Amino acid sequence: MYFTQGLHRAVQLKPDAAATVCGQRIHTFSVLRDRVARLAGALQALGVGRGDTIAIQAFNSDRYLEFFLASAWLGAVANPVNFRWSGPEVAYSLKDSAARMLFVDDQFATLALAIRDEVPSLRHLLFIGDARCPAGMLDVESLIEKASPIEDRHVGGDELFGVFYTGGTTGAPKGVMLSHLNICSSALALMAEGSFAEGVVGLHAAPMFHLGDMMLIAGILQRCGEHVMLPVYRPELALKAIQERKVTDLLLVPAMIQMLVDYPGIAEHDTSTVQRLMYGASPASEALLLRAMAALPTAKLTQVYGMTEMGAVMTVLPPSAHTPEGRSKGYMRSAGRAAYHVQVRIGDESEPKPANEVGEILVRGPNVMRGYLNKPDATAATLSGGWMHTGDMGYLDESGYLYIVDRLKDMIISGGENVYSVEVENAIASHPDVAVCAVFGVPSAEWGEVVHAAVVLKPGRSALTLEKLVAHCRALIAGYKCPRSFELREAMPMSGAGKILKAELRKPHWEGRSRAVN
Amino acid sequence: MYFTQGLHRAVQLKPDAAATVCGQRIHTFSVLRDRVARLAGALQALGVGRGDTIAIQAFNSDRYLEFFLASAWLGAVANPVNFRWSGPEVAYSLKDSAARMLFVDDQFATLALAIRDEVPSLRHLLFIGDARCPAGMLDVESLIEKASPIEDRHVGGDELFGVFYTGGTTGAPKGVMLSHLNICSSALALMAEGSFAEGVVGLHAAPMFHLGDMMLIAGILQRCGEHVMLPVYRPELALKAIQERKVTDLLLVPAMIQMLVDYPGIAEHDTSTVQRLMYGASPASEALLLRAMAALPTAKLTQVYGMTEMGAVMTVLPPSAHTPEGRSKGYMRSAGRAAYHVQVRIGDESEPKPANEVGEILVRGPNVMRGYLNKPDATAATLSGGWMHTGDMGYLDESGYLYIVDRLKDMIISGGENVYSVEVENAIASHPDVAVCAVFGVPSAEWGEVVHAAVVLKPGRSALTLEKLVAHCRALIAGYKCPRSFELREAMPMSGAGKILKAELRKPHWEGRSRAVN
Repeated sequence: MYFTQGLHRAVQLKPDAAATVCGQRIHTFSVLRDRVARLAGALQALGVGRGDTIAIQAFNSDRYLEFFLASAWLGAVANPVNFRWSGPEVAYSLKDSAARMLFVDDQFATLALAIRDEVPSLRHLLFIGDARCPAGMLDVESLIEKASPIEDRHVGGDELFGVFYTGGTTGAPKGVMLSHLNICSSALALMAEGSFAEGVVGLHAAPMFHLGDMMLIAGILQRCGEHVMLPVYRPELALKAIQERKVTDLLLVPAMIQMLVDYPGIAEHDTSTVQRLMYGASPASEALLLRAMAALPTAKLTQVYGMTEMGAVMTVLPPSAHTPEGRSKGYMRSAGRAAYHVQVRIGDESEPKPANEVGEILVRGPNVMRGYLNKPDATAATLSGGWMHTGDMGYLDESGYLYIVDRLKDMIISGGENVYSVEVENAIASHPDVAVCAVFGVPSAEWGEVVHAAVVLKPGRSALTLEKLVAHCRALIAGYKCPRSFELREAMPMSGAGKILKAELRKPHWEGRSRAVN
Repeated sequence: MYFTQGLHRAVQLKPDAAATVCGQRIHTFSVLRDRVARLAGALQALGVGRGDTIAIQAFNSDRYLEFFLASAWLGAVANPVNFRWSGPEVAYSLKDSAARMLFVDDQFATLALAIRDEVPSLRHLLFIGDARCPAGMLDVESLIEKASPIEDRHVGGDELFGVFYTGGTTGAPKGVMLSHLNICSSALALMAEGSFAEGVVGLHAAPMFHLGDMMLIAGILQRCGEHVMLPVYRPELALKAIQERKVTDLLLVPAMIQMLVDYPGIAEHDTSTVQRLMYGASPASEALLLRAMAALPTAKLTQVYGMTEMGAVMTVLPPSAHTPEGRSKGYMRSAGRAAYHVQVRIGDESEPKPANEVGEILVRGPNVMRGYLNKPDATAATLSGGWMHTGDMGYLDESGYLYIVDRLKDMIISGGENVYSVEVENAIASHPDVAVCAVFGVPSAEWGEVVHAAVVLKPGRSALTLEKLVAHCRALIAGYKCPRSFELREAMPMSGAGKILKAELRKPHWEGRSRAVN
């Protein structure tokens, strides 16, 4: 399996169809192939060889996709950098991956110029913005214009497609090495679920540096569909693009869904072309999903649970689990069943736990990463015994539905009782005043840790007290699981991938102390 | 990707559902896993290690599937032997693959005992029949009963799953080495087309030694569906099984479809559960497909074009091409478009030909074989430049539909004109009196070769003359393509895979001569 396969197939099937739509700029598949073959030629002339790393820090655009395709065409390794990262973080990632090139758009040109000298491997900065190319950079449009196209090297299988630096919700970033097989097999497994069907028009609303959106990229490519680029996510821009391009497929993280359903102008836009909404990356409350279904009634919902290390798909909760019948069985609280290409196990390498028993979630399959770059010990620990150790805790029911109870490091141990924060969050999120919440442990002399909640209220609500919140929760969960304290916030600190940064929320509470579990 | 993955997933999702149905014998997924783990344990105890070859010659049965699963569980290499082969052919294949075990059922026990001494690598004969175990063989049921289950070795990816000896339509058999990735990626690509949907009950009507049926095996496994075994194909048995087990998916070669639609009792059986009919392996006339659609009105048709070397899927003609609209565009004469995991090219390694130009069909993708066993030269020639050279001639239209004009070796050169036998066969097959036909070249002093047709008439028809046949064809194709001679036959010589053996038809005409093209 190789990433460029879908492009070749699309040129054969519908050379004159729209491949990429980026604002007013529309390229057909034959134009896209020509641009990719030329960009690869230009990069080769600049010294990029098979296995060399090239990086990008940019908002979503058609040129971002061309970067991925040209990198694969050459057999290079792509390092798509989180666009919310600061200079030192970007420099760390480029040094770690020994990147030879950095592609940037208008937004990140200044940062790139500021850090270039800190990264000895970096030969060139390449500009893919719309403004004039800054001094000291090469303009990619001019390179494409002048270069001769080269043949696809057809690199694939177990060879590296990219290095994806993990989130930063906790700890130092690790470069996850993913092969062509990792990514293409995950996309194909989603296609076998019916995702990205023939005729797909997909909206790249989530950041393209994130592996979640990579599923949409690879899936649309393999289905020969249309890629619609949204530079950054704003509900009004998303709705405009959906209406204009008759978008069929959305991939959103829960925070994006929240913004969409809260957007007052949603009903004024035609969203009736949306057939599928894929969500994942962080837990979504049932209340939010019901609002999403009401707001986008033509969309079938699919949840994908995965992580960067699993290229990105591990379990899938199909549309059938979101129907009234599926909901009545509680499936919407599940992360779904093993995807078509993987094996999921609860327990350890030598023995699985029986159904309904909580343990660490292990995964095996063609999706599992090749390892962490430059971190052989972390790689060996995470992949020991041939299984990917996710660090998440969960259980499987008798029908193979996976329920995630918490990330190992997020578990709160209070008075010897394990409290899984997701369960508490689900309880709090169902309160009518709550927009978003996050639950974590804070230090307690008496209990070690006690449960604490950070809450963002819905617009116009302000009357929530701890007493009322606890009263609401006690009706749903055991007393020891209810929050002992809470804080109201204007907004949550979010990662580039749309995850709530619990580490940041935790920090002020733990200043000068260390947690028992971390 | 690994072949046993679907079994693990099925045990997790529905341990108590029927996995295999073989006559009155029904096993659930948890029983199947247990039997496979024990059989693997028994084989390990008998000395079968990772990479060792084990063979089978048997009619279809649940034990055939257990053989494949236990072989993969151990990391062994399966050699499923064509059950129409004679003793010397079986011995050749076992020697070539250095098989250590041979599994046989009642039908092939005598043959196995007769050839065992000719195959030095052969340690044991294993009996999977229903009668008493013959002397000199080990009874598999007793082995399973006594053995301890072992853990799955989880062999997969590029490691070998099996050696499949090619057809024998021409030349000496070659052992095609196929990896787990070859087979599983092909099945997953078919699933992405909507084949073998959730809830599949598939009928193994085609022989399980053939790679065509392997797609049904692997597809049903990955969808956690039910395998219904038909020991040998007879329309009345197939119809009975369809009705009893509510079969949803059929995979048949055209000769089997012909027998089914010609069977007088078809209307007395309930076939309304059949949702999908997959066909391939040899060309099917449009007339036959229309009859199949009329006989099985609930079934959506999908054609798969491939060959053993392509593990088995290369192009797919989806149900949409079989609708009146698709037919009006002529798609039903096509072999379909590149499957979701492959790239198809017409031409040579360095350059593709433009649309509508005939050339050799090349393929690249995770489906392409690892090579021919013990035949490095043939492997290098077939896989040169990273492309699988199919030896078939065809062209792609502007929408990527592939039209096969002939196998290179089947092409007739008459008076300097190339005649592609498929085109002539399509013309002849549309004559109302014709049931099956085959076209090939016979020697001619004047033209080198001339076009000759072998024809089987429909029951009750006998009035066909060459004059009438040519008059019918001239309305459809150029004069030089029409047959100059023809022969009426009771039946066609068929290969185990359901292909017409043209080599046998040709032989009497070419006795003592050699063809220019072969």
